[in-house]
Amino acid sequence: MAPAKVQPRVPRGMRDILPEQMIKRQYVMDLMRQVFESFGFEPLQTPVLELKETLMGKYGPEAEKLIYYAQHVQGSEELAMRYDLSVPLSRVSAMYRDLPKPFKRYQMAPVWRAERPQKGRYREFYQCDVDIVGSDSMLADAEIMSVIYEVLNRLGFRQFRILLNNRKILTGLGSYVGVPDEQLGGLYRAIDKLDKIGAEGVKEELLSNGLSHEAIARLMALLTARGSNRELLAELRARLQDYPRALAGVAELEEIVEALGALGVPESAYQVTFSMVRGLDYYTGPIYETVVDEPKIGSITGGGRYDELIGLFTNQGLPATGTSLGIERIIDVMDELGMFPPQIGRTVVQVLVTRFDVASLPASLQVATELRRAGISTELYMEDDALGKQIRYAVRKGVPYLVILGPDEAANDQVTLRHLARGEQETVARAELVSKLRQWASAGQTGELL
Amino acid sequence: MAPAKVQPRVPRGMRDILPEQMIKRQYVMDLMRQVFESFGFEPLQTPVLELKETLMGKYGPEAEKLIYYAQHVQGSEELAMRYDLSVPLSRVSAMYRDLPKPFKRYQMAPVWRAERPQKGRYREFYQCDVDIVGSDSMLADAEIMSVIYEVLNRLGFRQFRILLNNRKILTGLGSYVGVPDEQLGGLYRAIDKLDKIGAEGVKEELLSNGLSHEAIARLMALLTARGSNRELLAELRARLQDYPRALAGVAELEEIVEALGALGVPESAYQVTFSMVRGLDYYTGPIYETVVDEPKIGSITGGGRYDELIGLFTNQGLPATGTSLGIERIIDVMDELGMFPPQIGRTVVQVLVTRFDVASLPASLQVATELRRAGISTELYMEDDALGKQIRYAVRKGVPYLVILGPDEAANDQVTLRHLARGEQETVARAELVSKLRQWASAGQTGELL
Repeated sequence: MAPAKVQPRVPRGMRDILPEQMIKRQYVMDLMRQVFESFGFEPLQTPVLELKETLMGKYGPEAEKLIYYAQHVQGSEELAMRYDLSVPLSRVSAMYRDLPKPFKRYQMAPVWRAERPQKGRYREFYQCDVDIVGSDSMLADAEIMSVIYEVLNRLGFRQFRILLNNRKILTGLGSYVGVPDEQLGGLYRAIDKLDKIGAEGVKEELLSNGLSHEAIARLMALLTARGSNRELLAELRARLQDYPRALAGVAELEEIVEALGALGVPESAYQVTFSMVRGLDYYTGPIYETVVDEPKIGSITGGGRYDELIGLFTNQGLPATGTSLGIERIIDVMDELGMFPPQIGRTVVQVLVTRFDVASLPASLQVATELRRAGISTELYMEDDALGKQIRYAVRKGVPYLVILGPDEAANDQVTLRHLARGEQETVARAELVSKLRQWASAGQTGELL
Repeated sequence: MAPAKVQPRVPRGMRDILPEQMIKRQYVMDLMRQVFESFGFEPLQTPVLELKETLMGKYGPEAEKLIYYAQHVQGSEELAMRYDLSVPLSRVSAMYRDLPKPFKRYQMAPVWRAERPQKGRYREFYQCDVDIVGSDSMLADAEIMSVIYEVLNRLGFRQFRILLNNRKILTGLGSYVGVPDEQLGGLYRAIDKLDKIGAEGVKEELLSNGLSHEAIARLMALLTARGSNRELLAELRARLQDYPRALAGVAELEEIVEALGALGVPESAYQVTFSMVRGLDYYTGPIYETVVDEPKIGSITGGGRYDELIGLFTNQGLPATGTSLGIERIIDVMDELGMFPPQIGRTVVQVLVTRFDVASLPASLQVATELRRAGISTELYMEDDALGKQIRYAVRKGVPYLVILGPDEAANDQVTLRHLARGEQETVARAELVSKLRQWASAGQTGELL
């Protein structure tokens, strides 16, 4: 008796990315990499598995519950799967002291979090991170925001805002309304809900947290203030002049806003937002996240300065700042708004070389090799099927061009080239096939990449 | 008291890939992807974590001991980390029946095996796989070998041989020398050592396995035969004419050799080798691996046909064939033989824009943005340091060009461009900087990518 079949399936919250979706991912990741490298960020790869002790105590107790652990049969080490890319970068920065500083790196890699699976949220997902280690200059934070702007702008995003705040301001606000440092967490959580539950909801939550009506009024006036970035910072500076921690945060944001202008990031692309908090424990200074108005999908980037994280691994700590770009959500938005360019199709294949009979098969193989060596993605039809079936295969896959090579063509050193969607076809000398294809592709409206 | 520092280190057998090494990896992987796509292979991504039951019973008992397992605090599923890319592909092929066939896919991704760490062998390493699912045509196997040839040839490999054999021939050889099917494993293991322990060593091992002197002589005559690929296959065909299984394998290799010629793979690049076995259990037909003579490093690719693996997941099995390219070993060889082109340097950064003083800083930021938007990798120096220190930083990192923008340049809308290695420098209008850089780069012998 044959052994029972194993049902083919994936773990909860995990998924396969099939070619059509992968072609889109690669388009986005290639563009990100181009932008990252244009800013001088260097590629880095860290192992998926870290020692458990490397990850513990970095993310906060709630986040820590979501970490995956790993082991093998004979192993004695306690291993954990990467939860983000910032902690591994911090470990790297502490471990290789000789890396020139600032160390600017990017990494695009999966991370694992055992969150409850839901639409658009997966337990294995990619983060695309850029970080600058070893500089406390606000130019570094401005550069990170500039990277976000360039990536989104070049992907075709027009309606997005990078929200900008500073943990020093948030801490200062706590002092301003009389919340002691150890209760700041509750204050942050309430503030963070402004978008979801509105000003009245936040007020209620703050009341139940024990804040006075007067303190809440003072706080809400700041959180709901409207104006240009410079106006908002000026107002905060005036109101918080007795709170040096908050003022230091204001000064940092002023520097960032100044630099963003010179870096060519338009004022409309970012917004100082005192109610934006960011979840993770390790931020210490400027924080930034990007939101889009349509579709409603949450933030598509998130990051900030974490000057104390590397110090958990070494006595010589280093300042650091950076962001994560959420490629899954970015692709969801681009899909929903139809933002992918027409040449990002269902297949990488540009040409299907058909086969006719045994006698002409070697010529078909040769033509396929000629096209491939010219850099044209070419599939050779492998089975001994009728031409009609071969054409249906090309149509089903979305391959734009067909090359037909029967006995007549083979005898005359020719091939027949057909554009499937346009129904055009022409018989040309084999030596001219590549140039003819390029000519057709650039003349056509079909946007094939050739 | 501050909490104790966590020592920054990685798990046994794992490693970080720092930028200088990553730049080389990306060069190799980009080229592989180009070749894979030129053959019409589509990208696929599968999760790192698979259900344990998906991996069990696929690799053989020895291999299975090396698998890593994973879990999270609240999880009930039994999870395992990817051991190779062929079993996940088989699961995918069984799970998405609608994928057009043949399904040609590539995947470049890490896998985990808890082998004893040693020089050049890691517990997390990348596999770069191309596979064709759903075709039993030998054209598919020839195409896989053709991909191997194109990748290695374009990477600059000149001294390599793709060894070619067939599991059907190996099984037939067993019958030929009187080894029953259930003892074939021992026969394979002995044969596989021919390169390592020589003909005498293999003979001894076969003797101790219980084979007769006469059977061993018959076997060794075939294993050590010399000649062209066609001669070797003709000799085998003559000797094994009473063993239909072996003859089917010979016919398959004859077809492959025929197709390889038409596909433009030179005869010198592959070698029919009856002593080549391949370790994994799941191969059923042609098998191929690539060896280089210098340096001695083992095989740099390995693969073959596995027509029965997908049938473990579904009643409608599918034939499949493919190969894995070992990027770690390929890079080791290229490093050792100095095969990387000169533009693959220590850094992605092409230009360092220096900063002079607060007054000229905005102009420096603007110039950096202009260069970046022109696609030139540009780092902006972030700290307020003396020019000498900024130059030393560029030299240390291996950045080829420097842009200097002091008060004189800023006042005249100019910049000074310096090539660090050549010591040349010129002051040009800011609007001409990009074209001047491209001109210098194409004129120079330095091979910078611009």
